[in-house]
Amino acid sequence: MRMYDIILKKRNGGALTDGEIKYFISECVTGNIPDYQISALLMAIYFRGMNDAETSSLTINMANSGERADLSEISGIKVDKHSAGGVGDKTTLIIAPLAAACGVKVAKMSGRGLGHTGGTIDKLEAIPGFRTSVSKSEFIRNVNSIGVCIAGQTENLAPADKKLYALRDVTATVDNRSLIAASIMSKKLASGSDKILLDVKVGSGAFMKSYEDAKSLAECMIKIGKAAGKNTVAILSDMDAPLGNAIGNISEVYEAVRVLEGKGPQDLTEICIELAANMIYLAEIANNIESGREMAKNTLESGAALEKFYEMVRCQGGYLDEMGSWEKPKYSQYKAELFASESGYISSLLAQECG
Amino acid sequence: MRMYDIILKKRNGGALTDGEIKYFISECVTGNIPDYQISALLMAIYFRGMNDAETSSLTINMANSGERADLSEISGIKVDKHSAGGVGDKTTLIIAPLAAACGVKVAKMSGRGLGHTGGTIDKLEAIPGFRTSVSKSEFIRNVNSIGVCIAGQTENLAPADKKLYALRDVTATVDNRSLIAASIMSKKLASGSDKILLDVKVGSGAFMKSYEDAKSLAECMIKIGKAAGKNTVAILSDMDAPLGNAIGNISEVYEAVRVLEGKGPQDLTEICIELAANMIYLAEIANNIESGREMAKNTLESGAALEKFYEMVRCQGGYLDEMGSWEKPKYSQYKAELFASESGYISSLLAQECG
Repeated sequence: MRMYDIILKKRNGGALTDGEIKYFISECVTGNIPDYQISALLMAIYFRGMNDAETSSLTINMANSGERADLSEISGIKVDKHSAGGVGDKTTLIIAPLAAACGVKVAKMSGRGLGHTGGTIDKLEAIPGFRTSVSKSEFIRNVNSIGVCIAGQTENLAPADKKLYALRDVTATVDNRSLIAASIMSKKLASGSDKILLDVKVGSGAFMKSYEDAKSLAECMIKIGKAAGKNTVAILSDMDAPLGNAIGNISEVYEAVRVLEGKGPQDLTEICIELAANMIYLAEIANNIESGREMAKNTLESGAALEKFYEMVRCQGGYLDEMGSWEKPKYSQYKAELFASESGYISSLLAQECG
Repeated sequence: MRMYDIILKKRNGGALTDGEIKYFISECVTGNIPDYQISALLMAIYFRGMNDAETSSLTINMANSGERADLSEISGIKVDKHSAGGVGDKTTLIIAPLAAACGVKVAKMSGRGLGHTGGTIDKLEAIPGFRTSVSKSEFIRNVNSIGVCIAGQTENLAPADKKLYALRDVTATVDNRSLIAASIMSKKLASGSDKILLDVKVGSGAFMKSYEDAKSLAECMIKIGKAAGKNTVAILSDMDAPLGNAIGNISEVYEAVRVLEGKGPQDLTEICIELAANMIYLAEIANNIESGREMAKNTLESGAALEKFYEMVRCQGGYLDEMGSWEKPKYSQYKAELFASESGYISSLLAQECG
């Protein structure tokens, strides 16, 4: 098999076989295919697309390109959640303890920031002492004992995705439905949960600007989940404006705590209840979404979700009392105020002062 | 300016500006743009194409990417000829001395083989002693004194084309009209002749399989010539079957001599007279193609073209008497006989015997 022939086939509009995709992904990870051939194929895929079978094959081969987490030692149905992300999206900080407080097993591997938005791991690390790098045994022990652990992805999780994403990022081949879906789902499949909940963002602040595109991406990922034998549910949520009011790692942690206290912004609270409700339903703890929703609301109001959050933080080494409180936060040493100008741009004069 | 933005613009169907193309080519030659971005752009160009202005700009910037031959010390109108090549195409060996014998100044820089066909330089080097690597001063002296010199392209002739071609060759981005035209014409422009004659092959053995594609490529190259201020003429010629009967470097030299002796195959003789006629007309030695054709025929029949070939060979250090003759050729030491099988494939058993 030759990479040249695979590029040519896709360029001419052909559908790649599972064997061809397997060859591409495995040789790509071992470094046997030069980057210039990979990027040529990515651009050909951008123009020609991939059908459902190709997309599933690409995803599964990417998921198999590295280590696959084995969560079989965790009892119960493990539900993973993925958000396409966006400015102010701190939902994982809230729904992981919220769902866990409702009995869901949340074995969550999260990523760092991508583009202009911070990742869950970056936000958690703003909590003094919080360890996001935990061993496999600690990860499993935490989920079994308190129902939740949020850890950074292992280096070797879907290495093919790392390789492809780095190239897509610099060759204008990011925004293709199949490539986006494969990138997200390969990591979800490799993370080892039993069921997957997807929060697909739509709007001016999201990858998917239109409802149609977001729906199409969601359907594509659901099909991949099905092909891989993992029950997958997607909800579409609005990203025309930042979620909540706080932006920035430590600020977002404070706001997450506010939501868990029942005092958070309405938009953020609503989406968190909706996502938690779906996780509860997927974990077969509620018989339908509506009861899941009620359960999530009650758990939030009772303070049990907040308590679970503190438990998780303590369990992973964090010292919340060193953070101050929402009313009297301990922010970082350096700060600069930036004001939006009338034209919508941040005043560059002030921006330059930011040390 | 960022390469990423150039890729994105072309991917989205935009027309690149001269400034963007200039940036791309100059940074590409200095090695500042990684190969994976170049190949992504090439694939985007494959799908989106380039308009006339982009194609001309690409060609001229590629021509300017290295050394440009200065032929001003050669008196008279210098006419260059390019053939798209094909199996058995040894026309340059014939028409260079033929046109020179008619008074045309033939300052010809030729390439080596590409794909499955030998290049003019490879063929000439089959003549014992023949030097294709000549200094600039010798090149000019030869053309001024005997009217013809065929030399290998200098290393630094259109280096952008070398870089791009090497990548196109391994990323399935060769067969795009603009990229083919720019590759050919950049070298012609950098070679410094005043006028350009193009022999565009059409047929199953050529890059361009259909008459329409060949015509379109020819028109594209004529427009580039016009944009660069060089009078350019193209003829389309048949490449459904090999040209002449001889294939292989030394065999093709023998057959070229046969044509110059007036004893060559009809197809090859005809195309050579047609090409020479156009060169004679472009050099303003004949008032029209028809008189150019007459002049070429007469020069061939008189033996003057053959004499000019011998003169060229001697001038460049070749010893024709060491080659043997057409009737009693001195072939290489190793040989193997290959027979076409009924299905049209060469018998693999015999092919393996070829040491």
